[in-house]
Amino acid sequence: MARYQMILAYDGTDFVGSQRQANPRTVQGELEKALRKLGWSGNSVLLAGRTDTGVHAAGQVAAFDLEWAHSPEDLRNALNANLPLDMATREVRLAPGKFHPRFDADFRRYRYRLFCAPTRNPLRERFAWRIWPAVKVAMLAPLAQIFIGTHDFAAFGSPPRSHASTVRTIFLAGWQQVEDECWFEVQADAFLYHMVRRLVGTQVKVGQGKLSAEDLSQALAGQAKVSVGLAPANGLTLLEVGYSSLVDHSSGQN
Amino acid sequence: MARYQMILAYDGTDFVGSQRQANPRTVQGELEKALRKLGWSGNSVLLAGRTDTGVHAAGQVAAFDLEWAHSPEDLRNALNANLPLDMATREVRLAPGKFHPRFDADFRRYRYRLFCAPTRNPLRERFAWRIWPAVKVAMLAPLAQIFIGTHDFAAFGSPPRSHASTVRTIFLAGWQQVEDECWFEVQADAFLYHMVRRLVGTQVKVGQGKLSAEDLSQALAGQAKVSVGLAPANGLTLLEVGYSSLVDHSSGQN
Repeated sequence: MARYQMILAYDGTDFVGSQRQANPRTVQGELEKALRKLGWSGNSVLLAGRTDTGVHAAGQVAAFDLEWAHSPEDLRNALNANLPLDMATREVRLAPGKFHPRFDADFRRYRYRLFCAPTRNPLRERFAWRIWPAVKVAMLAPLAQIFIGTHDFAAFGSPPRSHASTVRTIFLAGWQQVEDECWFEVQADAFLYHMVRRLVGTQVKVGQGKLSAEDLSQALAGQAKVSVGLAPANGLTLLEVGYSSLVDHSSGQN
Repeated sequence: MARYQMILAYDGTDFVGSQRQANPRTVQGELEKALRKLGWSGNSVLLAGRTDTGVHAAGQVAAFDLEWAHSPEDLRNALNANLPLDMATREVRLAPGKFHPRFDADFRRYRYRLFCAPTRNPLRERFAWRIWPAVKVAMLAPLAQIFIGTHDFAAFGSPPRSHASTVRTIFLAGWQQVEDECWFEVQADAFLYHMVRRLVGTQVKVGQGKLSAEDLSQALAGQAKVSVGLAPANGLTLLEVGYSSLVDHSSGQN
């Protein structure tokens, strides 16, 4: 029996979030189903982070214990043969016996994609949020800077357990133009529930003139009741979960 | 009553092709359902081109006659409110009374997207073909050149009716690298059934060393029984249908 770490990608559209629940289809549930076909008899796989309903992942991390006589690469292929088409194992490797993908993680990195258009585009909206009126990266870029550092993000999300801390440290946050899309990337030690979507939704409200940059600063400072925005799940992808010490964290190509 | 021309986009994944059939879900069937809610009582909308099951469109063209008291832009919005989320009207405009999207078309332009990777990627395979072993644009680019011009493409597809001509004129054909994807774009007066997918599949076979460039030339010359390849539908998108004389053909952004 050995502990394995795996990097998992999925199209979140048809999943009700990453955590296993009684009836709806979840990432965890489908992963456990595939593992059982390979002889796994554990109670629960471990996941690095919860992703909400509809959120995608290129680099979710899971861990499980398994008796497996072949190589990690063979395990990756066997899992992919048993997983549904909207999920895939990018990589499987041996991990230290006590490796925990959530507790051992040093950071999480997310990407949010949006594009500006007045009418629906069915070829793009699965993975990007369509907004109108338009916003520009030049206007959004300075807003992202205020999030960097250690702040109380209570205005932008709720903690995993009630009364737990809402302080988080954002290491990197920024907007870039990629073809005609605006991409927001953010890396933090951890995120509150809905936090990335609220950071994006609120910046877009400023970009569209519905809030001022001052409102945004005051929300972050906890000084004002600001009506923050919530961007939809479809634009969000968990890119990477990073482990500085235990295991290296290259998540492979997107 | 006036004739309207519309530009239609759809994610082809959940459609059984563009043509209406008895039971399965089709682009034409969904479009007619939406039009009926706006008072349309025709027998059949006209479509510029058939797309196979799973093929996408950014610029499919349709035409229909409708009594409509408001602007074409209002009609576009009303249609979008009634179409399923995997389809959208990009644009609606008035057309000459005899406008026929198929017979009046001067050209069709398609894009085929592929990327090279050893394992499944659920975030990308909806709109691009994953292949392995890898191919390179530098190797594919010269192959595309031999298709340009007027040729008998019998080896690469079948005509709409048996015994009809298999001669077609390709105006433009070429490969480009877009980030880590290879894109094939091709424009012709018209295409045979499965023709773009066979052109792509066969070039990839050459790129992977399963056929020679000579085999490809001989297939095009009708001189040899070459086992051509068939690329899957998911990588293919109908970008534009062009009308040089009757109506201008800007298909809007992708």
